[in-house]
Amino acid sequence: MPLSEKALIDRIRRNARRSSSLAAGIGDDCAVQRVVHGYDLLITTDFTLEGIHFRREWYRPAVVGSRCVVRGLSDIAAMGGEPKTVFLSLALPRKLPQRWVDGFMKGLLQTATKFKAVLAGGDTAESPDGVCADIVVTGYVPRGHAILRSGAKPGDEIFVSGALGGSAAALREFFAGRRPQPQDFPRHFAPIPRVAIGRFLRDKNLASSMIDLSDGLSTDLGHICEESGVGAEITAAAIPRARFGRKTALVDLRLGLDGGEDYELLFTSSRGKSVPARIAGVPITRIGRVTRQKKVVLIGQDGSRKRLRPQGWEHFR
Amino acid sequence: MPLSEKALIDRIRRNARRSSSLAAGIGDDCAVQRVVHGYDLLITTDFTLEGIHFRREWYRPAVVGSRCVVRGLSDIAAMGGEPKTVFLSLALPRKLPQRWVDGFMKGLLQTATKFKAVLAGGDTAESPDGVCADIVVTGYVPRGHAILRSGAKPGDEIFVSGALGGSAAALREFFAGRRPQPQDFPRHFAPIPRVAIGRFLRDKNLASSMIDLSDGLSTDLGHICEESGVGAEITAAAIPRARFGRKTALVDLRLGLDGGEDYELLFTSSRGKSVPARIAGVPITRIGRVTRQKKVVLIGQDGSRKRLRPQGWEHFR
Repeated sequence: MPLSEKALIDRIRRNARRSSSLAAGIGDDCAVQRVVHGYDLLITTDFTLEGIHFRREWYRPAVVGSRCVVRGLSDIAAMGGEPKTVFLSLALPRKLPQRWVDGFMKGLLQTATKFKAVLAGGDTAESPDGVCADIVVTGYVPRGHAILRSGAKPGDEIFVSGALGGSAAALREFFAGRRPQPQDFPRHFAPIPRVAIGRFLRDKNLASSMIDLSDGLSTDLGHICEESGVGAEITAAAIPRARFGRKTALVDLRLGLDGGEDYELLFTSSRGKSVPARIAGVPITRIGRVTRQKKVVLIGQDGSRKRLRPQGWEHFR
Repeated sequence: MPLSEKALIDRIRRNARRSSSLAAGIGDDCAVQRVVHGYDLLITTDFTLEGIHFRREWYRPAVVGSRCVVRGLSDIAAMGGEPKTVFLSLALPRKLPQRWVDGFMKGLLQTATKFKAVLAGGDTAESPDGVCADIVVTGYVPRGHAILRSGAKPGDEIFVSGALGGSAAALREFFAGRRPQPQDFPRHFAPIPRVAIGRFLRDKNLASSMIDLSDGLSTDLGHICEESGVGAEITAAAIPRARFGRKTALVDLRLGLDGGEDYELLFTSSRGKSVPARIAGVPITRIGRVTRQKKVVLIGQDGSRKRLRPQGWEHFR
């Protein structure tokens, strides 16, 4: 196995030295994390599996490492939390070149550090097949103030950050046998977890419910509706569609509705609240409202009303 | 994939309803865990990969599920902590029968529940190859009282709980083409994480350092020595060797020294302390002492002194 347990522990040590929240225990049986009084702990885990979540020939290893940790950071953002620690369980095929592992770790650590998360532990193993990474990210949110999926109320307005479908547009290029370039598809190759937006919304008490768009709007809005026991109406013309390629083309509506891995935030806000048009430099767009009737309806450009089924992106299936 | 995300979430919900420490957020982007004032949080992650850590044809699925969570519970025990929550990331091959998943989950939940740990979240994915599970276990320990690997001092006495080599003895049977029976090798098929022992040692302030024996005594004692900057002398005749088969045979000394996955506790205690001969019903045996000279020495039955190199069990290699 190219990355020995000792090598991983050494990297973790170097990284963790910067953090005062790690009491002790690095290279120990457990990480020991000092908890913060008055805060709740957030924990999320996300797999990144070769052949399921990525293909090694498509990406530089640093991109794989970065996207891997973004999945967890984005989950923390979706609760209105602040990232704190990252744990990496990494199983590697025996024949994997060391420079791939180095690139992967570099991408992962750069992105984690950018969002103030410290690599605090993990596990290594040999993989019988492809690269298999499981990321755990912890974070904190003031006690009782996590923004859940279950808080949407009929009458609330529905918002999204940024633009949608940009990540799926790159995948479509890959599947068509082309080689999309990172600079043309930044949301795919270098997604940004919306930690600052989530924190702002929590701090200002603006969101009644929130989720990050990892599976696609149609699926993730469905999660909010299911957890909140409500429905939703969204307006096709309002969906902020991503631009791609040389920044000239808008993605199809279908990619905006179903494309996954944009890692934008989807949230609801009660009508009395004043949601800014931009938060942390990112446009915020109102796309619809929460309804009492438990289904998700898409209002078309011609005024037609159609049921919107969850058809979010299910990786390579 | 046999176990859908929804099915996993439903199971987690049923399980978590019993716990008041989970503030909210089940089926959400993150689990929200209420932290306990005056305590440090412990976090550990452990892979269980088919073909590396287990072979599917060797075990009932409940045994795989149980052993999977024991790895994490044992890490919590080794810090003197109390387990709290479990997160399961589970990637399954498409063709895996549903009853295998049911059995796996049953074993995992039974063992977690027995040690008061609540399944609080996780992730599911399709695996391109075999079963791939990553377990995260969290726990708590009174602030500043985690028992680390790094606290051993020259002159401390070295102890182990239970008997060693019993798990590796079953593996040796498998590799010899035989079918060891669970009742003859309980430490292999149904290992018990020594949570009660770890808690007792922490509570009575008896251990200066501690580790769980997952890789084998020669390797794990090496970890304590390395982290503490010390050496050790252990006495071959003192090693408590496991009985196996029809409870008549003692394992070879080699298995006692190098056999992994016993999940007993190895700890050091300063000479003034009085360590009981049994803790929580399990025998505690003094096997040697901590030395200033940074190497691990095995004193043979004939009084010979040999360097003990880490040759712990490295799974199927």
